[in-house]
Amino acid sequence: LASAQSNRQDPLPSWNEGTVKSTIIKFVQQVSTEGSPYFVPAAERIATFDNDGTLWAEQPLYFQAIFAIDQVNEKAADHPQWRQEEPFKSAITGDIAGIMATGMEGLGKIIAASHANLTADEFRTSVRHWLASARHPQTDTLFTDLIYQPMLELLQYLRAHDFKTFIVSGGGIDFIRVFSEDTYGIPPEQVIGTTSEAKYEVINGIPTIVKTPNIILVDDKDGKPVGIYRHIGRRPIFAAGNSDGDKQMLEYTTLPHGSDDQTPRLGLIIHHTDAKREWAYDRQSDIGKLDKALDESRQHNWAVVNMKKDWRQVFPKAR
Amino acid sequence: LASAQSNRQDPLPSWNEGTVKSTIIKFVQQVSTEGSPYFVPAAERIATFDNDGTLWAEQPLYFQAIFAIDQVNEKAADHPQWRQEEPFKSAITGDIAGIMATGMEGLGKIIAASHANLTADEFRTSVRHWLASARHPQTDTLFTDLIYQPMLELLQYLRAHDFKTFIVSGGGIDFIRVFSEDTYGIPPEQVIGTTSEAKYEVINGIPTIVKTPNIILVDDKDGKPVGIYRHIGRRPIFAAGNSDGDKQMLEYTTLPHGSDDQTPRLGLIIHHTDAKREWAYDRQSDIGKLDKALDESRQHNWAVVNMKKDWRQVFPKAR
Ligand SMILES: [Ca+2]
Ligand SMILES: [Ca+2]
Repeated sequence: LASAQSNRQDPLPSWNEGTVKSTIIKFVQQVSTEGSPYFVPAAERIATFDNDGTLWAEQPLYFQAIFAIDQVNEKAADHPQWRQEEPFKSAITGDIAGIMATGMEGLGKIIAASHANLTADEFRTSVRHWLASARHPQTDTLFTDLIYQPMLELLQYLRAHDFKTFIVSGGGIDFIRVFSEDTYGIPPEQVIGTTSEAKYEVINGIPTIVKTPNIILVDDKDGKPVGIYRHIGRRPIFAAGNSDGDKQMLEYTTLPHGSDDQTPRLGLIIHHTDAKREWAYDRQSDIGKLDKALDESRQHNWAVVNMKKDWRQVFPKAR
Repeated sequence: LASAQSNRQDPLPSWNEGTVKSTIIKFVQQVSTEGSPYFVPAAERIATFDNDGTLWAEQPLYFQAIFAIDQVNEKAADHPQWRQEEPFKSAITGDIAGIMATGMEGLGKIIAASHANLTADEFRTSVRHWLASARHPQTDTLFTDLIYQPMLELLQYLRAHDFKTFIVSGGGIDFIRVFSEDTYGIPPEQVIGTTSEAKYEVINGIPTIVKTPNIILVDDKDGKPVGIYRHIGRRPIFAAGNSDGDKQMLEYTTLPHGSDDQTPRLGLIIHHTDAKREWAYDRQSDIGKLDKALDESRQHNWAVVNMKKDWRQVFPKAR
């Protein structure tokens, strides 16, 4: 009886009725109903989610970049030369445009100063501390309060139908792993992201992983299918993203593997259209630019979530 | 009642009674019994297994090397120059010592010729075909018949107590993923191994992963804790191996993280002592050399499996 009742309950209460919601529900029912011509064995029900702009917000700057800038400021007293040296000078004065002007090289220096040459445990502690105390510059909430309630419900709905849910993010794998289990119910072994080299040493009798700045996977664009292959070893049947950085993951997930491939596959694009409740941006944005993937969504039958229209609620209710 | 009966059944029927068996059972009971002072939450019950010599045999040569040599022979007609060129010349004439004499560089050429510059699907097909037909040179069985029955029972026993079981192998990740799910019940996303770079391309409208020869993780010795960190993101509480290549994984798994770390941890070493039913080798062997890890087993309380004494049965009964 409990099961029959829960079947009748709406599994996605924060989603408004419409094409996107019904497409998701139809897809999940088809692949998980034994005897359905579209049935997919549970082991192959792999779902991959981008993180920034898909599971949590990303404006006015990727939250991990805000963390990195905060770390630079915390360490600035030990590095007096940083006051004269870009990109650190801009980071210390809070000049985002100044940091951006230093390009990938400058961002790399900030990431290296905040994310490398420390042990895995030290890095985890610094992220944990930051997430528990830092405030978003506009909403004044914790960053983990800016996760999307409809996506939490979608993750839960997929898992209830024996999907294995993964994060596949351009952000750092070690950063996301600190909070993914508590925040999204996604354990560290199901997080894929941009990855730096690590080395193993026994330090004072304690087996220790040390993070180095040498990047071995940029988990964005072409890197997303590569990261999926490396970590999962099979193609997903569901993927969700919000920017052109997700185009290749959406292709890899949804394009048929030849004319005899009848496996149902679903791609989802989160379109940020709600300037009032969240942010509105797409083709012209530096952060989360959505242009080509939006153009191709029709051709590939990717479902585009109009955040303003499709989401009844954006963020979880305050506890 | 069914549950009470199965509790009374021996979960490891192919293991003889003795210290090793009782150590394993005590460990699993402690970490999985709620209220026990040694209880470990299910999410942290991570178990890692070496493959060659731990889950299946590895004599007279790693099975993946036999696959690579077979592939070279299959392709030799298209490469007539190989008859004059080492290591291919030795591979074609079946001269293992000749291949070994070409060192890591020669082995690298054979691996590149058999494992790279083809698509992930092509590689998977070639391994699948080989496993279904190739015969072990001494036993004349399929290679997948040379898996260890006691280890299958151990994997099953751990999973029945909510452990997540992983392979962490010096062998190739893509090779092992082809058979790990059917053979061991370990899905591809829980296989870690030596990894080559891959690239993503859409070829004739089909999203495709192409394997390249550039190695980005040698998953042996120091590489094993690094591979575990990269793929799992937390330390195992159980690890099993059979050679000095597993020493660092065993350390990383079992050494306490400081004086306040009371988490129960178990390391297991498979010692090949049974020349009659399997092979007997350790300190002097080129394949699966076990020397330093055996010396350190006492100091770290690693349980050493004496294959001859501890295993009632080695290979699964013929079906
Ligand atoms: Ca994104
Ligand atoms: Ca081994």
